[in-house]
Amino acid sequence: MIRFALLGCGRIGVMHAGILARLAETGLARVYDIDEAAAAAVAKRHGAAAAASPAAAVEAADVDAVLVASATPTHADFIEIAVRAGKPVLCEKPIDLDVGRVRACQEVVDAHPEVPVQIGFNRRFDPGHAAAFAALAAGEIGELLHAVITSRDPGMPPRAYYEAAGGLLRDMTIHDFDLARCCLGEEPAEVFAVAGRLCDPALMAEIDDHDSAMVILRTAGGKLCHINNTRAAVYGYDQRIELHGDRGMVISDNNRGHNLAKYTKDATASRAPLQHFFIDRYLRSYELEILAFVAAVKEKRPPSPGFADGLRALLLAEAAYRSVKSGKIEQIEA
Amino acid sequence: MIRFALLGCGRIGVMHAGILARLAETGLARVYDIDEAAAAAVAKRHGAAAAASPAAAVEAADVDAVLVASATPTHADFIEIAVRAGKPVLCEKPIDLDVGRVRACQEVVDAHPEVPVQIGFNRRFDPGHAAAFAALAAGEIGELLHAVITSRDPGMPPRAYYEAAGGLLRDMTIHDFDLARCCLGEEPAEVFAVAGRLCDPALMAEIDDHDSAMVILRTAGGKLCHINNTRAAVYGYDQRIELHGDRGMVISDNNRGHNLAKYTKDATASRAPLQHFFIDRYLRSYELEILAFVAAVKEKRPPSPGFADGLRALLLAEAAYRSVKSGKIEQIEA
Amino acid sequence: MIRFALLGCGRIGVMHAGILARLAETGLARVYDIDEAAAAAVAKRHGAAAAASPAAAVEAADVDAVLVASATPTHADFIEIAVRAGKPVLCEKPIDLDVGRVRACQEVVDAHPEVPVQIGFNRRFDPGHAAAFAALAAGEIGELLHAVITSRDPGMPPRAYYEAAGGLLRDMTIHDFDLARCCLGEEPAEVFAVAGRLCDPALMAEIDDHDSAMVILRTAGGKLCHINNTRAAVYGYDQRIELHGDRGMVISDNNRGHNLAKYTKDATASRAPLQHFFIDRYLRSYELEILAFVAAVKEKRPPSPGFADGLRALLLAEAAYRSVKSGKIEQIEA
Amino acid sequence: MIRFALLGCGRIGVMHAGILARLAETGLARVYDIDEAAAAAVAKRHGAAAAASPAAAVEAADVDAVLVASATPTHADFIEIAVRAGKPVLCEKPIDLDVGRVRACQEVVDAHPEVPVQIGFNRRFDPGHAAAFAALAAGEIGELLHAVITSRDPGMPPRAYYEAAGGLLRDMTIHDFDLARCCLGEEPAEVFAVAGRLCDPALMAEIDDHDSAMVILRTAGGKLCHINNTRAAVYGYDQRIELHGDRGMVISDNNRGHNLAKYTKDATASRAPLQHFFIDRYLRSYELEILAFVAAVKEKRPPSPGFADGLRALLLAEAAYRSVKSGKIEQIEA
Repeated sequence: MIRFALLGCGRIGVMHAGILARLAETGLARVYDIDEAAAAAVAKRHGAAAAASPAAAVEAADVDAVLVASATPTHADFIEIAVRAGKPVLCEKPIDLDVGRVRACQEVVDAHPEVPVQIGFNRRFDPGHAAAFAALAAGEIGELLHAVITSRDPGMPPRAYYEAAGGLLRDMTIHDFDLARCCLGEEPAEVFAVAGRLCDPALMAEIDDHDSAMVILRTAGGKLCHINNTRAAVYGYDQRIELHGDRGMVISDNNRGHNLAKYTKDATASRAPLQHFFIDRYLRSYELEILAFVAAVKEKRPPSPGFADGLRALLLAEAAYRSVKSGKIEQIEA
Repeated sequence: MIRFALLGCGRIGVMHAGILARLAETGLARVYDIDEAAAAAVAKRHGAAAAASPAAAVEAADVDAVLVASATPTHADFIEIAVRAGKPVLCEKPIDLDVGRVRACQEVVDAHPEVPVQIGFNRRFDPGHAAAFAALAAGEIGELLHAVITSRDPGMPPRAYYEAAGGLLRDMTIHDFDLARCCLGEEPAEVFAVAGRLCDPALMAEIDDHDSAMVILRTAGGKLCHINNTRAAVYGYDQRIELHGDRGMVISDNNRGHNLAKYTKDATASRAPLQHFFIDRYLRSYELEILAFVAAVKEKRPPSPGFADGLRALLLAEAAYRSVKSGKIEQIEA
Repeated sequence: MIRFALLGCGRIGVMHAGILARLAETGLARVYDIDEAAAAAVAKRHGAAAAASPAAAVEAADVDAVLVASATPTHADFIEIAVRAGKPVLCEKPIDLDVGRVRACQEVVDAHPEVPVQIGFNRRFDPGHAAAFAALAAGEIGELLHAVITSRDPGMPPRAYYEAAGGLLRDMTIHDFDLARCCLGEEPAEVFAVAGRLCDPALMAEIDDHDSAMVILRTAGGKLCHINNTRAAVYGYDQRIELHGDRGMVISDNNRGHNLAKYTKDATASRAPLQHFFIDRYLRSYELEILAFVAAVKEKRPPSPGFADGLRALLLAEAAYRSVKSGKIEQIEA
Repeated sequence: MIRFALLGCGRIGVMHAGILARLAETGLARVYDIDEAAAAAVAKRHGAAAAASPAAAVEAADVDAVLVASATPTHADFIEIAVRAGKPVLCEKPIDLDVGRVRACQEVVDAHPEVPVQIGFNRRFDPGHAAAFAALAAGEIGELLHAVITSRDPGMPPRAYYEAAGGLLRDMTIHDFDLARCCLGEEPAEVFAVAGRLCDPALMAEIDDHDSAMVILRTAGGKLCHINNTRAAVYGYDQRIELHGDRGMVISDNNRGHNLAKYTKDATASRAPLQHFFIDRYLRSYELEILAFVAAVKEKRPPSPGFADGLRALLLAEAAYRSVKSGKIEQIEA
C-alpha cells in the first residue's frame, strides 16, 4: 500500500481523499490545506493526520507519495517540495498558468530524475477514451487521419472560479489539448483557435474571458484534430472523442447512470440523463489515474502523463491564445 | 455506522465484505465461514475479527447487524440465530429450497416483529430497473399491460454448483420471479412454465436439471409477464426488463463498461462487451441494497424486500415446477 | 415485366397497386373490386383497366399473374380461379379463417402443381428480419436456443374490423406464427397461449375477442419461441424479433423515419417516433415480397412462403385457441 | 402533374429520371444528353422523348419545368436557356466553379423574376437534417451557439472525377457550406480552413487537389460552425449534423438499411452498415427536393434554396480557399 500526503482539500481534494482511502492499493496518511478546518475534516473522516505545513505533510515518515490538489498557483511549489524530499508526486493540472514558472519547476524536476512526477490528465484513463487510444495503438483503425473532441461543461461556474482559472483555454481546453495529443499520436505543430462569448457575453466581456471555443490542430504530418468547447451545455456534461483512421473509426461516447429508455406518445425513447459532471463521469478515470501512478512508483518506471506532458498542453494553450488574437494558424513552441 | 457480522466467505461473501468495508455507512466487524481459512483471509483484509461460530459472530457486542451469504441450507438457521439475538439481518436469496422450512423460519421471524429482516433480491435496486419501477409507480406509463424479463447467464456454472442450487427455477429464475412481482405491480395468480435442456443436454439430463426456461405469469386482473432464461448466453450477461403500459413503455437495458463504438469495413459499430456477470452488472445494486437495509435499520422501518417476499418468490418457483410437469397453467399458493 | 390483375382495392389493395405500378419488374393491367367505384379509381390512377368480375380480371390476355388483396372470405375462391386459369397468384394472408376451407382449396392448388402460389407473409422480407434469418441460416449465431417476437399494433382498429378479422390469434398473431417458424428453423410441435382483454375490456368482452396475448411455442427438439401481442401500444408500431443461439444473438429492432436525437434539460435524447404502422414499417417488405414472387414466376420455381405455409400458420392459431380455452400446452395438428 | 425536361443523363440524371417518373406529382417528358445513346436509353425506359438539343427539350410544349443534371460547366448556360424560355428550373449544384460566370448568370435570372430557379442542395431536405433545422426554428434548442457538420465520403472517386470537380471545397464541402448556413441561422462572416492530402497524398499532390479538410465558420454574432471532410471513410458514408443551442442540442445521425444488431463472443453488437453513398442516404431528400420545387412552381412562390443560395455557398468555398493559402481567418465576400 502506498500512503499519500494530500495537499489541498477543496472539491477535487475531497474526491481524491475518498479514492485514496477506498482503494486497496492506497492509503491516506497526511492531509494539508491552507484552510485548517477543511484539512481537519478530511483527516478525521479518513483516519489520517492533519499536517501543519505542506512540507510537514510531505516529509512525514509514513508518507510514500504526494497528491497535489491545491490551488493552481501552489502546484509548482508543492511539486518542488515533494521532488526535493524524494517523494513521488501526482499533481493536478495545470502545473502553472505561466510557462516561465513551469520551465523553472522543470529544472528542479529534471535534477531529480529518480523521483516520479505524474500530471493529472485523468481523462486519458477514462475507460472509453482509453479503449479508443488502445484501438488506435493496436492498428485497428489504421493510420489516424483526423479526430474530433467534443468537450462541454454542463453550466457556467461561479464568477470566483473564472478569476482564478487563467482563461478558458488554459483551464478547460487544456484537458482537450492533452487528449488531442493522444488522439493524434504525434505532436501538434500548429493551432488555430477562435474563442467566443456566447453563454454569458456580459460577464465574459467584463472579466475578459471566453465561454466557447473552436480549435483546429495540425501535426507536421498533416493530421488534423478539432476541439469544440462550451461552458454551458444545458443537457449535461458532454464528453466525446472520435478518431477517424484510414481503416476505421472509433467513437467514445458519453455515459449515463443507467440505460432506461422511455417510450411515450409524445417523447419517444427519452433516456436517462448524461452523467452530471466530471466527478460522475470521470470518477473511474481518477481511480485509474491513481492506480497507474501507484504502479509506476512500485515498478520504478517514469509515470505517464509526466511533467513534459503538462508543459506541452500549456504550450498548446499559449499558441491557441496567440491564434485567437492574430486570426492566424500559429506555430506551437517546441 | 452499522457494524456487520458477515456469515459466509465464498464468492458472494467476499464481494459483500468489500462493500461493507468500503461504504461510509457500514463496517465489517466479525466474519464467519465453515472454512476457517476463508474467514481468516477476509477478516485480515478488512481489519475484522474471525469468529468461531455463527452465534459468536452474531452475538458479539460490536455487531449491529448480520449479513448472511453462506450456503443456502444454512440461511434459515442463520436468520433464526440473528433474529433471536435481536440483530437485524440481510439474507441472500433463497431463504431455503424447501417451503416447509421457510414457513417454519417465518414463525420465528414473526415472533420477533421488532427485528428487521431483508431478503437479498438485489436486482430491485439496479438503477435502471429501479427507474423502470419508479416510472410505473409514478404513472408515467399508465396502467401496466404486460412485461418481459430477459435474464440470461453468460455461461454454464460448474457441475458442483448445480448440485447445490436446487434447480434452475429455484436458483436463477427466482430473481426474475421477484422482479416480475415488481413489474406487474400486483400479485401473480397463475404461472405457466416450460423448462428445457438446450445448452448442455447430457449434463442436464444426468443431474435432472434444466438450463433454459420460458415462463408466463398472469395476475387476477389479467396482467401478463413473460420471463426467458438461459444459462449460457455466449455474448454476455443479458439482463433486461420491459414494462408496457397503456400510456407508454420503459426498457431497462444492459450496461457496458464503457461506450466505445467501432466502425470498420467489416464490422460496423461493434461496441464494448456487456458487463460480464452479476458482480459487474449488479455491483451498484448490491451497494444500494445494503444502504436500503441500513436506512431501514436506522429508521426502525421494516425493510423491503422482506421475509414474505422471499417466500412469495419460492412459491412462484414451486408452482412453475408443477406447470413444467403438468403442461398446464398452475395456480400459485396463497 | 409481369403484368398483374389486382383483386381487391381496399387499404392494402391500394398500397399493392402503387407498388405494382412503380416497380420496373411489374405492371398493373386489370383491377377488380366488389365496389366498382373503388376499382375504377385505382384503375384510373395507374392506367389499368377495371374488370367486371374476378374471373374477367384473371383471365385477361394481358394478365400474367394475380394479386389477391380482397376480403378474407374471398381469398380461397380467388386462389382457385387463378390456379384454374393457370395464372400465378400471390394472396394476402390468411387463406381463410376455416381450416376445412383451406384444405379444400389446397386440393385445387395441389392439382395444379405448375401454377405458383405465394402467401403474403410479407414480414419475412423485412430487411432487418430477413438479415436475422440469414444470420441464423449462415450459422453466425450457431444453433437456435430460443426466440422472442414482440409485435404490437399502435392502436385499436375500428369495431367493424374486429367483426371480420376472425379473432386476434387468426388475424394479428398469424403473422407472428409465420415469423416464429422462420425464427425456430424447425416446426413448432406444441403451443401454449393466453389471451386477454386489457386495452378495451368492455368491447372485447362484448364481441368475444381479445386485444392482448402471450404465446410460447416449442419444437420437438425443445427450441422455444415467445410471442407477445397487444393491439394498442401508444408509443407506436413495435415490431422486433430476437434470435438467441448457442454462438450469438441477433435483434432486428424497430425503424424510425429518421435518426434525430434531441437533448434538453428535461428530456434527454428523445428520438424520432417509430414508423407509424405496417404500411410505413413494412412498405419495403411488401415490395420485396412482390419481387420474390416475380422472380419465382420467371424462374418457374415454387415461391416461398407457399400455400402450405399459409396452412401451417392457421393450424398454429387453431392450436393456440385450444390452449387459451384449456389452459394447457396443446399439440399442433400435423 | 409537372412534366419535366431532364438535361443530363449521367449517374445523377438517371436517378432524377427515376424519381420524376415515379412520383405522382411529376412526369418525365423530354430528355437530353450530349451522349445521344444515354439520352435515348433514359427516354425509352420511362416513356419520354429524347431531344436533339437542350433548347429543344426545354422549349417543347409538353414541358412545364427543367431539371439540370448535366456537367457543371453547362449549368449556367442551361439555367439561362430555361429562364429565357420562361420555364422553372431546378439545377444541380454548383451553379458554376467560377464566381464571375455565376454573377453573369444571376443577371439573367434576376431579369426574369417570375421564373422560379431552385439550386439542388438536396441535403436540406433530408428528413433528419430537416427535423434538426425545424427544431432550431421552433426554438426547441434555444439560440444556436455552435454546430458541427461531419461529412465523409466512403471512398476516393476516380481520377477523372477530380479533374472536373473543381477542388474538394467547391465540389464536396459546398454541400456542407450550404448546410452550415441552415445550421447557423445567420450568415457566416468569416471562414478558416485547412485542407490536406491524407487519403491518397501522391494523387492529390499530382493533381493539386485535397482529400481532407477542416473548416471553422463564424458569423458576425460570434456563432461557430465546424465542418470536417474526408474523401475516404472506409466504414461508409458518414453524414451527421449537430446543433448546440443554449436550451438543448439535436443530432441528426446516420441511417442504416435496417436495424439488426448482432451479439457474439468477439464482436458485441455489430450493426448493419451505414447506407452506402448519397444515392442511398439522400434518395428521400432528392424526392423531397423535387416535391418542394413542384410545390413552389404550382403556388408561384420563389423556391428555396434559390439562386442566391447557390452563389453564397460558392463564395464560402472561395473564401475557404483563400484561408487555406493564407493560414488566416478570411472575410466572406458580401
